[in-house]
Amino acid sequence: MEGDDTLRLRVFDLNCWAIRYLSKRRQERVRLIGDILRQERFDLVLLQEVWSEQDYSDLKAKLGGCYPFSHYFRSGVFGSGLCVFSRFPILDTLLYQYSLNGYPYMLQHGDWFCGKSVGLLIIKISGIVFNVYVTHLHAEYCREKDAYLPHRLVQAWELAQFIRHTSKAADVVLLGGDLNMHPEDVGIRLLRGWTGLRDAFAEATRFEGCEDGCTLVPNNCFTVKTELLPFPLGIRIDYILYKAVSSFTVKCEELKTTTGTALGTDIPFSDHEAVMATLHIRRQGQAAGANLGTAEPMLVDVVTEARTEVGVGLRAAQRQRYSTGRMAVLALLLLLLQAAAALGALAGLADGQPFPKLSFSLLAFLAIGVLLLATGLHLFHTMEVKMLQGTEEQMRMALRALQERP
Amino acid sequence: MEGDDTLRLRVFDLNCWAIRYLSKRRQERVRLIGDILRQERFDLVLLQEVWSEQDYSDLKAKLGGCYPFSHYFRSGVFGSGLCVFSRFPILDTLLYQYSLNGYPYMLQHGDWFCGKSVGLLIIKISGIVFNVYVTHLHAEYCREKDAYLPHRLVQAWELAQFIRHTSKAADVVLLGGDLNMHPEDVGIRLLRGWTGLRDAFAEATRFEGCEDGCTLVPNNCFTVKTELLPFPLGIRIDYILYKAVSSFTVKCEELKTTTGTALGTDIPFSDHEAVMATLHIRRQGQAAGANLGTAEPMLVDVVTEARTEVGVGLRAAQRQRYSTGRMAVLALLLLLLQAAAALGALAGLADGQPFPKLSFSLLAFLAIGVLLLATGLHLFHTMEVKMLQGTEEQMRMALRALQERP
Repeated sequence: MEGDDTLRLRVFDLNCWAIRYLSKRRQERVRLIGDILRQERFDLVLLQEVWSEQDYSDLKAKLGGCYPFSHYFRSGVFGSGLCVFSRFPILDTLLYQYSLNGYPYMLQHGDWFCGKSVGLLIIKISGIVFNVYVTHLHAEYCREKDAYLPHRLVQAWELAQFIRHTSKAADVVLLGGDLNMHPEDVGIRLLRGWTGLRDAFAEATRFEGCEDGCTLVPNNCFTVKTELLPFPLGIRIDYILYKAVSSFTVKCEELKTTTGTALGTDIPFSDHEAVMATLHIRRQGQAAGANLGTAEPMLVDVVTEARTEVGVGLRAAQRQRYSTGRMAVLALLLLLLQAAAALGALAGLADGQPFPKLSFSLLAFLAIGVLLLATGLHLFHTMEVKMLQGTEEQMRMALRALQERP
Repeated sequence: MEGDDTLRLRVFDLNCWAIRYLSKRRQERVRLIGDILRQERFDLVLLQEVWSEQDYSDLKAKLGGCYPFSHYFRSGVFGSGLCVFSRFPILDTLLYQYSLNGYPYMLQHGDWFCGKSVGLLIIKISGIVFNVYVTHLHAEYCREKDAYLPHRLVQAWELAQFIRHTSKAADVVLLGGDLNMHPEDVGIRLLRGWTGLRDAFAEATRFEGCEDGCTLVPNNCFTVKTELLPFPLGIRIDYILYKAVSSFTVKCEELKTTTGTALGTDIPFSDHEAVMATLHIRRQGQAAGANLGTAEPMLVDVVTEARTEVGVGLRAAQRQRYSTGRMAVLALLLLLLQAAAALGALAGLADGQPFPKLSFSLLAFLAIGVLLLATGLHLFHTMEVKMLQGTEEQMRMALRALQERP
């Protein structure tokens, strides 16, 4: 606490792009990240894409002196990539894995294997209860034809619902992470509107860093320049959001982003820029009521827009469920036909050997392969349909509640 | 409210055993369940194993008059099976899907496909905020050698953590469901100890129903008698648990179970007995502090016991991850060997045709099949290991917090 009633909190957030064997100069960059964290002594460090537990352990060993508390959230095949370092004790944690996260067969994107989640940490500083959330939503690979938009919207909705339901006893809520959404995207408006979280960049008294607060910029030597062609300044997809939920106020005094290479080296920390916020938390006389972040008529529009997009995803998932189901049935019919033909041949109904054995066996194996694959995909798309329907239903309920309010 | 300050709440809980094509006399029983619910007019109805959305819709249509509010939780391939009917408006919902829930290849058990979850509903009655949870944990198929114990313990832990983190603004917490654990099992002790929930059966002033409150009894014509041989009275695995978290007290005035056939018919409602509780909720003068359900030294023992079992599961999962990984590598080696031999034959290095084409192709297809299957299983067990490690770590953190308390 500064003086009697103001707490100053310095928060660091970075998507570290630390994928084993794939990310360029990973170990060097993880060392650089460790160096800056040790040097700057933030209060709270929220990291994403730390996919290797070894990297986390190395950071933990290096930072033990200035950040005695830390947590790594495990999920999916490669872990969640989410971890936190803190100067203050972490009292409790909870992980919520998003119900939809891309497709297992999109190997080139790989999001499905990462078990994308939101991690919650409870931290108490000077008697103030902080609910700190760290997350990473599904990537956007093609903005013009974004096949993952419905999944990302389900994630944004689940994130908002998770925050609302778990933060009721918190004094201050903090969310940091790579949301993979531009500030004006429907997912961000939904998240902010439905939770009342404020954007540190928009609220900051002072700002220093990349123009427009961008965190994926063409100047960074690791970004794919062609993807950023429509955005000459870059894009802002990494955020620090906050709100006070009881008798506290939070103000963002300063927001910074890194702007390329780390001090004294020729490389940046990551393909993303880090976001650093200095927050002032002040106890105020009277308790502020819980409030939504967006005026309600506007919020109705945002939820309706999000629901429409989820509906588009639902119909696409239903089509895929149908076509994979049909494929499985066709493969099964082919197999049955082959079985009948083989039995007929065995029983001597046909004259001689009607099929060459090799092609016959190859065809059977192919049919079995297609049957298994199509059945697996059918089950997967059935789950996808269920979750999209569930989210649409929840949004419908939210809209009704909003419209019924006096 | 009765008088000024007491609310009387009648809660019904039942595992309906309504699996399409598999459960005996399903439609007849769903009709009977609808009849009793309409006749008895409970305040809150918590159902599990309603796997068909059609059954839910039929119940909804039938019960619309006396239970105007309802919700079906969607997840997994067949849905979560969880649904709720209420006389009072449902203000909000949230679904948390357990991170572990059996194995996809255990088709004869099928739990994995159900997306077992806990559903949360927020209901406000006479100004009192109720957090109502409905859940169904992984079944126990063999008590002597329970391969699913670690998964069920992870679920019990996640359930407890989810309740703790989401119920902080609730006045009253209610949990109903089929927990698939006997009252003395470590999972139940963990859940009750870590959340402070009380068992309506143990607390009830009056009890009426099956002896010892059993909900899976040999007298029920749908239960498998051989499975209940070691328990002549049956077992109690369906629960209504509750607690008051602020300035309220909850008392269980009466607990009942059904005892076999429904009135006027020859069949019971389900293979489980229903649990019906009448609760008295009273506003009291001073706020009660949040408290754990079990004295702390005992709670340390319970968490330690649970952590040991999770550790056993972790080592089993690590062994399976290793053996499936090894199998995948062997299949890959075989494929490479075949490719080399085929290339050799094509290049004319071997004299004539060394392999019969048919067996050669069959072997290749077999190797591809084994490679795909083993890789899939390896990924699955890698995720299992991650989640078991994550739970063990959370339990370790909980133990440290318990031991550090003054």
